[in-house]
Amino acid sequence: MKYLDLNADVAEGFGAYESFEAEGLYDIITSANIACGFHAGDPMIMKRTVNLCLQKKIAIGAHPGYRDLVGFGRRPLQITPEEAVTDVLYQIGALSAFTQVSGAQLQHVKPHGALYNQVMADETMAKALIEATKNYSNKLAWMTLANSPFAKCCQALKIPFVQEVFADRAYDDNGQLVNRKLQGAVIHDSEEALDHVKRMVLYGEVKTLSGKKLAIQADSVCVHGDHPESLKFAEKLRQSLENEGIRFKSFGMAE
Amino acid sequence: MKYLDLNADVAEGFGAYESFEAEGLYDIITSANIACGFHAGDPMIMKRTVNLCLQKKIAIGAHPGYRDLVGFGRRPLQITPEEAVTDVLYQIGALSAFTQVSGAQLQHVKPHGALYNQVMADETMAKALIEATKNYSNKLAWMTLANSPFAKCCQALKIPFVQEVFADRAYDDNGQLVNRKLQGAVIHDSEEALDHVKRMVLYGEVKTLSGKKLAIQADSVCVHGDHPESLKFAEKLRQSLENEGIRFKSFGMAE
Amino acid sequence: MKYLDLNADVAEGFGAYESFEAEGLYDIITSANIACGFHAGDPMIMKRTVNLCLQKKIAIGAHPGYRDLVGFGRRPLQITPEEAVTDVLYQIGALSAFTQVSGAQLQHVKPHGALYNQVMADETMAKALIEATKNYSNKLAWMTLANSPFAKCCQALKIPFVQEVFADRAYDDNGQLVNRKLQGAVIHDSEEALDHVKRMVLYGEVKTLSGKKLAIQADSVCVHGDHPESLKFAEKLRQSLENEGIRFKSFGMAE
Amino acid sequence: MKYLDLNADVAEGFGAYESFEAEGLYDIITSANIACGFHAGDPMIMKRTVNLCLQKKIAIGAHPGYRDLVGFGRRPLQITPEEAVTDVLYQIGALSAFTQVSGAQLQHVKPHGALYNQVMADETMAKALIEATKNYSNKLAWMTLANSPFAKCCQALKIPFVQEVFADRAYDDNGQLVNRKLQGAVIHDSEEALDHVKRMVLYGEVKTLSGKKLAIQADSVCVHGDHPESLKFAEKLRQSLENEGIRFKSFGMAE
Repeated sequence: MKYLDLNADVAEGFGAYESFEAEGLYDIITSANIACGFHAGDPMIMKRTVNLCLQKKIAIGAHPGYRDLVGFGRRPLQITPEEAVTDVLYQIGALSAFTQVSGAQLQHVKPHGALYNQVMADETMAKALIEATKNYSNKLAWMTLANSPFAKCCQALKIPFVQEVFADRAYDDNGQLVNRKLQGAVIHDSEEALDHVKRMVLYGEVKTLSGKKLAIQADSVCVHGDHPESLKFAEKLRQSLENEGIRFKSFGMAE
Repeated sequence: MKYLDLNADVAEGFGAYESFEAEGLYDIITSANIACGFHAGDPMIMKRTVNLCLQKKIAIGAHPGYRDLVGFGRRPLQITPEEAVTDVLYQIGALSAFTQVSGAQLQHVKPHGALYNQVMADETMAKALIEATKNYSNKLAWMTLANSPFAKCCQALKIPFVQEVFADRAYDDNGQLVNRKLQGAVIHDSEEALDHVKRMVLYGEVKTLSGKKLAIQADSVCVHGDHPESLKFAEKLRQSLENEGIRFKSFGMAE
Repeated sequence: MKYLDLNADVAEGFGAYESFEAEGLYDIITSANIACGFHAGDPMIMKRTVNLCLQKKIAIGAHPGYRDLVGFGRRPLQITPEEAVTDVLYQIGALSAFTQVSGAQLQHVKPHGALYNQVMADETMAKALIEATKNYSNKLAWMTLANSPFAKCCQALKIPFVQEVFADRAYDDNGQLVNRKLQGAVIHDSEEALDHVKRMVLYGEVKTLSGKKLAIQADSVCVHGDHPESLKFAEKLRQSLENEGIRFKSFGMAE
Repeated sequence: MKYLDLNADVAEGFGAYESFEAEGLYDIITSANIACGFHAGDPMIMKRTVNLCLQKKIAIGAHPGYRDLVGFGRRPLQITPEEAVTDVLYQIGALSAFTQVSGAQLQHVKPHGALYNQVMADETMAKALIEATKNYSNKLAWMTLANSPFAKCCQALKIPFVQEVFADRAYDDNGQLVNRKLQGAVIHDSEEALDHVKRMVLYGEVKTLSGKKLAIQADSVCVHGDHPESLKFAEKLRQSLENEGIRFKSFGMAE
C-alpha cells in the first residue's frame, strides 16, 4: 500500500485581509502549512485555522517566512543563519501556542517562499535550522524539497523529514527545480502535470527538462488553493492517484 | 523565612536598537519579563536574553504587549478579549520556542504597559486570558497587580499567580494604583519609596494616599533597570530588605 | 443647480492583498479617499490608484489612519494631538509624492476609521490637525462629519472643508451619528436609506432617530464599494438623486 | 575658494528608541539625511529633526531605506525598480510634509544602507529612480557614491547630484568602494583616513587599494555621529580641512 501526503499553504491572510484558500481545499489536503505572522498570518487566523485542521483531521505544520509582509515573503532577503534560526523558532513557537491550547500536534515545518528557496539550497542554513528544531523537538519533521541539500542534511542528521514534489515544475538534470526564469520551468498543461506527478509518485522517477530520468522520492505533493482552477486541479490530482491505488494521509498520522 | 521576588521588564530592544536595561540589573532581579516582539523585542534579543537568564539563574517570564512598536505598547488600544487571548498566546508561544531550545522553563506571564492596565482591571479580559493559559499549561503563572480583579480571578479559577507591588506608586482606598494623572500618584522620594515597599513586604499592609491602612500581598516587587538611578534604587531596595531578613528568589524556583 | 460629491475609501489593499473596492466604483464616485500605508495601502497601490483616479477624473484625497494594519485602523487607539498631527502629515506627504509625480492635485484629507471617530468629536484634536494642514497647504480641504466639532473648527479657522453624510446611519438629536452599539443606529433598509439621504441632500434636513428634524449640510455622501450590494446601492443612490436634478462633481473641481 | 559638504545620517530612532547621533553632530555637518520610516525614523522624530536642522541651518535630505526595521535596512532585499521607485517616492513625500509645514527646503535624497548599495551599482535602478524624482521635482538633488553608475546616470540625465566620498573606505581600481568583506576595505587608522580624504578633496584624486591614482570628485564627505569617537573624528576632519582653506557649506545653499 503506497501512501501520499498532499500539502498546501494556508492561513495566509492578515487582519481584515482574508486568506486566499478556497474552503474546499480542506477536503483534499492531508497537511496544512500555516502562515505564522511574518509574511502573512495573524494570531486570530492562526487559531481559527488550527481548529479547522483539527476538525478536518489535517496534519498541522508551521509555515515560517521572511519578515516581509508587503512582499508576502517572496522577495529574497539576505539573512544570516542565526537570523534564520531565531526567526523560524519564533514563528514555530507562536503557532505551537495554538496547537497546544487546542490539543493538536505540530507535525512539521515548511519554510515559505523566498526563505524556502534560500534554505533548501544552502547547506549551512540547513544545518543551522535542523540543529535548532532538533533541540526544540525531535518529533518535529521538516518538509523539504525532494533531492535538495536540505533534504540530504536531514537524512545525515537523522531528523524526521519528508520530500515534497511539485506537479507544475520541471526538474533539471541535478534533480533540482528549474529556475522559474528559464523556459519550460513551469508546466502549464494540466494533463502533462498529472503525468509528471504520477511518474514521480508511482515510479519514484522524474523526467527532467532535458529528457533524462532521475530517481526522486515523492512523500508529499504541494498543491495550491488560491484559485478555483488550482483547487480543481488538486481534486483531479487526488482522484487520479487514488484511482491508481494511492492512499492519502499525512506522513505523521496513523492510518 | 520570608521570600520575595524582584521582577523587571527586559529584552525591550528591537533590531539595531538595544534594550534599555543596565547589565547590573541581572545581578539583582530574580524574575525577568521578556518582551516578545509586539511592543518591543525581536527573535535575536529574545534568544540572547533567555540564555542570559539561564546563566544568571533568573526565572523567565513572557512579557506580551499590544502590537504597537512605535508606541512601545504604552498607548491604550481597544481590543476584544479574543484578540487579547490570541495576541498573548502568540507571544507566549514565540518565547517558549527559545526556552524550550535552551532547556529553560517558562515560569510566568506579565502583560506589558497599556495591556497590563487594561486586563488587570477588567474581569472579562482576565477570565478569557486565564482560561487560555490554563489550556496552554497549568504550570504557567500570571504575574498580577496586587488586589486587582485579575488577581482575584486567578484565585477563583485556581491557577498559579503572584501579586506584584510597586515601590514608587501610591495606592487608593480600594487597594488600586492611584491614576498617574492624579497628584501624589508617583512617589519620587527614594526613602519614602523604600518605606512604602518595606511596609508592604514585611507587614502585608499598604498605607493609601489618604492615610488608610489596607492589607496587601507582596509576592514580587517590580523594579526598573533603564536608568542608572533606577538600578541604584533596585540595589538599595534589595539590600535594605535583605537586612530585614527577607530572602530573594523567584516564586517558581526551589530555594 | 445643486452639486453633490460622492466619496469612497479606496486603495485599502496591502502587498499581495488586493483592495476591496469593485472596479465599477470608479464610475460612480467623484472623490476617492486613498489609504496611505498605516491602516492599509502600500506605495504600489497608492501610485496605481492615483493614476486610476486621474484617468477617471476623480478627485484625490488622503485617507490617513492609525498605524494599525492588523486592526485595519478600526480599533480606538489613544494618541496625543502631536502624534495625530505627525501621523497625518506623514501620510498626506507620502500620498502627495504620487500626486505630484503624476501631475494630479491632492484635494482633501479624510481620516479613517477609529481615527475619524476620535478626531471628529474632539475639538483639541481638530484644532491641532487643522492648524497643521493649514501650514502644509491652504488649499487642502478636510472632509468632515456633518455637524461635528471638527466641521465647526474648520469653519471657525476658515479653512476649506466639506461636510459628509451617511446614507445608512441614524442621527441623534444633537446632529451626531447614533453610536453603532445602539439600536436603530444603522439603517438596513435600502429604500429607507435612500429617503434618508434625499432629505438631507435636497432639503438640508435630517430626521433624527427620535423623530426630530434638524438642519444638516450634505456636501458629500460616503458610499462603499467593498461588496457588490453596496456598489449597487451607490449606483441607485446616484441615479435616484440625478433624477431629482442633482449633479455630481467633486467639490474642488470646476464643472 | 573650494567648498565642501559634510553629510550624516540622522533621525534613525523609532518610537521609544532614540536615534544614535550625538548632539554635537549638528554643529559639524552641513547636510542631514533624515530617515523616513522604513528602516528607521517615525513621524515625531522626523518633525523634530527637520526643525533642528532648520535651527542649525543644516540642509535637509531624505534618507529612504528598505522596509526592514528589524534589519535597519542593512540586509540586501531583492526589489524591482518599480518597488524601489514607489518606496522611495513614498518616503520622500512623507518627509516633505514636515519640511513644507516648517517652511524648509528638501534639498536632496540619499538612499540608505543596502538600498544605497543596490541602486548605486545598478543602472536600471538608477534610471528608474532618477526619472521618478525628476518628475517629482527638478530641484531635488541625489547624493551619490562618487564614480558610481548612479552618479553617471544623474549626469547623463542632467539632474542635480553631488558625489560623496568616505573617509574610512578604500577604493578599487575601478573607482568603486572595496567590498567590506575584503581585507583593507576599511581604513581603521584615523590619520590615514584623514590623508585619504584630504587627497580626494584637495587634489581630486584617490589612491586605490592597489596603489593606483584615480580621479574622483568629492562634493560631500559622509561622517557618522553614532559613536563619541566617530564624532571626534568628524570634528577633526572638518578642522583639518578648514586649515587647508576649505569652506564648509551644503551644496544647495548660498554661502
